[in-house]
Amino acid sequence: MVRTKCGSLRREHLEQEVTLKGWVQKRRDLGGLIFIDLRDRSGLVQVVFNPETSGEALEKAENVRSEYVLEVKGTVVARDAQTVNSNLGTGEIEVAAKELTILNKAKTPPFMIEDQSEVSEDLRLKYRYLDLRRKEMQETFKMRHQTTQSIRNFLNEEEFLDMETPMLTKSTPEGARDYLVPSRVHEGEFYALPQSPQLFKQLLMMSGFERYYQIVRCFRDEDLRADRQPEFTQVDIETSFMTTEDIMAMTERMMKRVMKEVKGQEIETPFLRMPYDEAMERYGSDKPDTRFGLELVNLSEDVKNSGFKVFSGAVASGGQVSAINVEGKADEFSRKDIDKMTEDVKVYGAKGLAWLKVKDGEFNGPIAKFFSEEEVASIKEKMAAKDGDLLLFVADQTSVVHDSLGALRQKLARRLDLIDETKFNFLWVTDWPLFEYDEDEGRYHAAHHPFTMPAGGRMDELKKNPKHVRAEAYDIVLNGYELGGGSLRIFEKDMQQEMFEVLGFSQEEANEQFGFLLEALEYGTPPHGGIAFGLDRLVMLLAGRTNLRDTILFPKTASAQDPMTNAPGPVSEAQLDELHLQLKPSSQSDSDE
Amino acid sequence: MVRTKCGSLRREHLEQEVTLKGWVQKRRDLGGLIFIDLRDRSGLVQVVFNPETSGEALEKAENVRSEYVLEVKGTVVARDAQTVNSNLGTGEIEVAAKELTILNKAKTPPFMIEDQSEVSEDLRLKYRYLDLRRKEMQETFKMRHQTTQSIRNFLNEEEFLDMETPMLTKSTPEGARDYLVPSRVHEGEFYALPQSPQLFKQLLMMSGFERYYQIVRCFRDEDLRADRQPEFTQVDIETSFMTTEDIMAMTERMMKRVMKEVKGQEIETPFLRMPYDEAMERYGSDKPDTRFGLELVNLSEDVKNSGFKVFSGAVASGGQVSAINVEGKADEFSRKDIDKMTEDVKVYGAKGLAWLKVKDGEFNGPIAKFFSEEEVASIKEKMAAKDGDLLLFVADQTSVVHDSLGALRQKLARRLDLIDETKFNFLWVTDWPLFEYDEDEGRYHAAHHPFTMPAGGRMDELKKNPKHVRAEAYDIVLNGYELGGGSLRIFEKDMQQEMFEVLGFSQEEANEQFGFLLEALEYGTPPHGGIAFGLDRLVMLLAGRTNLRDTILFPKTASAQDPMTNAPGPVSEAQLDELHLQLKPSSQSDSDE
Repeated sequence: MVRTKCGSLRREHLEQEVTLKGWVQKRRDLGGLIFIDLRDRSGLVQVVFNPETSGEALEKAENVRSEYVLEVKGTVVARDAQTVNSNLGTGEIEVAAKELTILNKAKTPPFMIEDQSEVSEDLRLKYRYLDLRRKEMQETFKMRHQTTQSIRNFLNEEEFLDMETPMLTKSTPEGARDYLVPSRVHEGEFYALPQSPQLFKQLLMMSGFERYYQIVRCFRDEDLRADRQPEFTQVDIETSFMTTEDIMAMTERMMKRVMKEVKGQEIETPFLRMPYDEAMERYGSDKPDTRFGLELVNLSEDVKNSGFKVFSGAVASGGQVSAINVEGKADEFSRKDIDKMTEDVKVYGAKGLAWLKVKDGEFNGPIAKFFSEEEVASIKEKMAAKDGDLLLFVADQTSVVHDSLGALRQKLARRLDLIDETKFNFLWVTDWPLFEYDEDEGRYHAAHHPFTMPAGGRMDELKKNPKHVRAEAYDIVLNGYELGGGSLRIFEKDMQQEMFEVLGFSQEEANEQFGFLLEALEYGTPPHGGIAFGLDRLVMLLAGRTNLRDTILFPKTASAQDPMTNAPGPVSEAQLDELHLQLKPSSQSDSDE
Repeated sequence: MVRTKCGSLRREHLEQEVTLKGWVQKRRDLGGLIFIDLRDRSGLVQVVFNPETSGEALEKAENVRSEYVLEVKGTVVARDAQTVNSNLGTGEIEVAAKELTILNKAKTPPFMIEDQSEVSEDLRLKYRYLDLRRKEMQETFKMRHQTTQSIRNFLNEEEFLDMETPMLTKSTPEGARDYLVPSRVHEGEFYALPQSPQLFKQLLMMSGFERYYQIVRCFRDEDLRADRQPEFTQVDIETSFMTTEDIMAMTERMMKRVMKEVKGQEIETPFLRMPYDEAMERYGSDKPDTRFGLELVNLSEDVKNSGFKVFSGAVASGGQVSAINVEGKADEFSRKDIDKMTEDVKVYGAKGLAWLKVKDGEFNGPIAKFFSEEEVASIKEKMAAKDGDLLLFVADQTSVVHDSLGALRQKLARRLDLIDETKFNFLWVTDWPLFEYDEDEGRYHAAHHPFTMPAGGRMDELKKNPKHVRAEAYDIVLNGYELGGGSLRIFEKDMQQEMFEVLGFSQEEANEQFGFLLEALEYGTPPHGGIAFGLDRLVMLLAGRTNLRDTILFPKTASAQDPMTNAPGPVSEAQLDELHLQLKPSSQSDSDE
């Protein structure tokens, strides 16, 4: 007999004989009858055992408990009008059981298999296979499947080839920390797990494949945050002969399709574009959430001669003064609230948070007295300040102003409930700096990676003025999260060599680490570029989740462990011997010596 | 201007203006004209530069050499009748160039980019990006893409969910050697890269997902053979509530679709099925190539009382005598040929190869004299031996007879050119032993893995007579290669525990390594099973290649190295320190002490 899906049954199936297989969600005994909600991947259906028609099955059903695995044969019948459950797709019918087979028993699970349970994440991860039975989790991973399917179908149709790059690769010191894999055959040598297939996808362009994609696992051995995992999945794309505009347009078509197929939502293209500098000035972030206002306004010009020395001093020393207008909310923020916000901005290095409230056309607050009439007028105009508004100021070095007000903006939006959660605001951030200057090391780092093309493909400024060189790079931002990013790549050996020089590589180091790339650039490398997306994060946003771990089947904890299998774990002496390794005596045992 | 694909141009495009981008396959100068074969992913087209219409482009073309990357604008024109190239899709036309841009230059490559080049594999791997430009390689990886796409489409339609299992997992001593990944956070602890997602896919069934698949990288740190790689790709499938028959039928539908979509070939289903014992007896192999005959015939009963003591002795000591009839080829095998074959079978432990030729109804050869008339008649009948046949015998322990004649059968087929390379002979091998006895260790190993269900789900024989217990397992064989294999899995804790006992695990060891699985089995595990395919090997067979490395973009050599990136390589002291590791002094430095 063919199996019927529990969640598929409707009135149209009345009188049909069905065979169901699934898990017991709940059992209720009522007036000599037994009701079982049977669950499979498709949903729930109510099965009823009664003395008249169920025979032995009723007796067996008495032994059944939550999470038992059952096979039930029965007939689809209508529910009484008063027992119809309109919350359930199958709520108009039930299955009158004739036969019952207990396929497997279950102990009482450590937590209920239901969405609203208050279970610690540790317990959920230890019993992940039970956690994953919850409807919310099932839906998330179905959505993940739909998302990858949608992306693949799009890319296949656009003639991209799905290609697999190696996982056992070479360690390079650029970028994040590598996970290493000791070699047994080559004593003292190691593979590295890829942080991304960056070089291999470029090599595929040099191989003439023209359009590559891969949905691929990547690895970074970094200290974890809520939105980081040691292994994560990347939608990785590379193309030859396409321009930045081509790649952005292709990406927009892809996102349009994903939003349509996964969320049933039409989105507008082309996406808004914003240069990096503008994003920082208006949102204090390189990945602005544009679903709400609270924009930063730069008032440096207006207050540079102010009697308030904190402001004028910041401008004079090369910093800036910016402010946010919390419109109409002056009365909702007490002195205590403002003190709390002041603590919040200090985390980002701000020395303080200045504020003004507008009342009867005047500024109120401890710093109000410092501003001339002209200054007040100018600030009011730029901030569009009116009665009842609260203005919040930070005066500091530019990066501190951006970081602190950018973070404050987010907090305010959540507190004031300004975020429309149904919106999907896609945004391109462009015109990135090519380099970041590392104060500690006194050298430049690649802001993206060392293979990024300078804007316009021009290398003349590269050495002269690295700080001001822009990258031919673009990030795609969704609702304040970086979804992905890409760039055109350097495709000429001379430019790549110059790039390494600016980054402080000696010629020897460059050759040692990237010799094969430099050599490959000499054999007919096409102009190429690409983009990569964080799949876990995309699914998180599509599914409306806030924890990246809820979008990964078997994630690691913040200390990079799996509480279910207890990975990582010790290995045998013999295993280490084969790898020519030994454990380093720990500081503990050092002190014993 | 939109780019046109080189390989797409036909007579129907005559007079069209096109923009081509691609690589110079070849340049020829002829009577003041320059001809360039321009290559992109789609194929080749001839571009002609002439003094009348090409202007400056002709001058530029003089500097162009092989593998330069060009952008060419021009007009599609017909070729003269005598220069039409019928071997080329674009052979009826050429492109009269108007503009030429050199996008990138190329040094002379270390080998020609063409299929028939005699280049060492080492050089090909060092310059893999050039090797991959060859048409044959381009076609193989397009076919790989088509294959995965076809598999995915099939599985998506059958409601399988594409799900990702972790790469950083726990090391278990069962099976092959793990690749280890040292943990930075947890001193002295290691992750292992997965040999397969076996346990995770079973856990997904316990999670209620019912139908899972993944095209996933797997890792085994084993000494390499021609058809093994340290990392390989597996099509991994698991289902709940399906029977062995269901899984086999589903697999056949999948293969039918792949063969149709990738090879344009209709194949017959259901596939032939053969129990393991029969495969060993008839083909001397658990993965028989059924594209040709040369079957093994067991003659033990016929010769057990023979005067030829080698035969009767082998049978008496529990072994057997089997033979192959090389029909009609007696005259093609000299004494020297047979001596050579004798050496070949000795590799497999055979003490010798006996032979008989049939002439005028009689046996000829050094051992002919030992057989009675009845024995001759009986052998002739069983072997269907007739004049001109050569009979080859091995008498030994059963496993030696199978291995040596199985290998000899393959060699004979190649020598006699009996293999129809256009055939795709799929075959199920069923009724596998559940255990293998390890003489050295004096214990049983799981023939597949320790989660395999005993045939019929019966555990009563498990402890009493492990040697004779069969597995609920099935391998799929194509043309003598194991394409994949699967089984139903144990889904009850008691049986799984008993399994571990037979395998010699103490209860403590079982809990230490597989405690989470044993626990999971208690919470409502559905009956489940699955199958896994080696994708690299499948593509190798579909593409008609014989080297697995030709189906992997960036493979490793036999010593597990990548000659292009030089992985694996040394890492810094600081990296090792962070991982709490140090290199073990090598035997070299030991002896210095």
